[in-house]
Amino acid sequence: MRPYLSFVTLGVSDLAASRSFYGKVLGLKPMHDEEGVAMYRLNGVVLSLFPQHELMKDAHVKDDARGARFSLAHNLGSEAEVDTFFAHLKKHKVTITKMPEKVFWGGYSGYFADPDGHLWEVAYNPFLEMDRDGNVVGMKQG
Amino acid sequence: MRPYLSFVTLGVSDLAASRSFYGKVLGLKPMHDEEGVAMYRLNGVVLSLFPQHELMKDAHVKDDARGARFSLAHNLGSEAEVDTFFAHLKKHKVTITKMPEKVFWGGYSGYFADPDGHLWEVAYNPFLEMDRDGNVVGMKQG
Repeated sequence: MRPYLSFVTLGVSDLAASRSFYGKVLGLKPMHDEEGVAMYRLNGVVLSLFPQHELMKDAHVKDDARGARFSLAHNLGSEAEVDTFFAHLKKHKVTITKMPEKVFWGGYSGYFADPDGHLWEVAYNPFLEMDRDGNVVGMKQG
Repeated sequence: MRPYLSFVTLGVSDLAASRSFYGKVLGLKPMHDEEGVAMYRLNGVVLSLFPQHELMKDAHVKDDARGARFSLAHNLGSEAEVDTFFAHLKKHKVTITKMPEKVFWGGYSGYFADPDGHLWEVAYNPFLEMDRDGNVVGMKQG
């Protein structure tokens, strides 16, 4: 994996309360804000707030599984690159919670767990604009 | 808070196993590696592996508290900036798990929790080299 991180997604219990906290108390301005998710672009990494049950559903992980309450994401440039990444993980017998598949938001995404169950999403997102160092620079309208 | 993230620290149960996973399976090269911690510089953000019990001790949080198994960090340029940040948090009645104090590694650090108990460290680290956008670019020898 090239050394970059695309997203840190926090599973939240009350999106309105979290949006208010990150927006009003910490003063972050959303890059993207819709009914079910709020995203703040930090230095090349997006901080994303997403309901906990949706995050667990997306990762194909039971909500009570080992206390998983967030995910890190590594975004790649195509579906084929995502498949290559998962082939590598399989070869190393890494725990894969979700094999990559087309997802509702228009991308292609799978999840694996590190030795402690920390979740990583590996995804292709056709709307995400990244620079050559892997920094997220923006998002096209879907 | 200016929109940048300095560290993502994962609490791990077996540092050697995690180091092997991130180094050998995912192919990341450490920026800093010592007995009790491993750090990998990603795009301007450091991914840090730290024993879970040490992380909870550092944050003044009980190990079983709400499943906290990671922290995000926002690094600032001086102890005074950290104090100003915590004064702001106090004014907004944010849950502070640890008021900033001088810590063993030579810095000055405190922790707060977001509405779901996700931990944020706010710290001054005299060894950390950052650019003006908040990207971590390196670490001086301590």
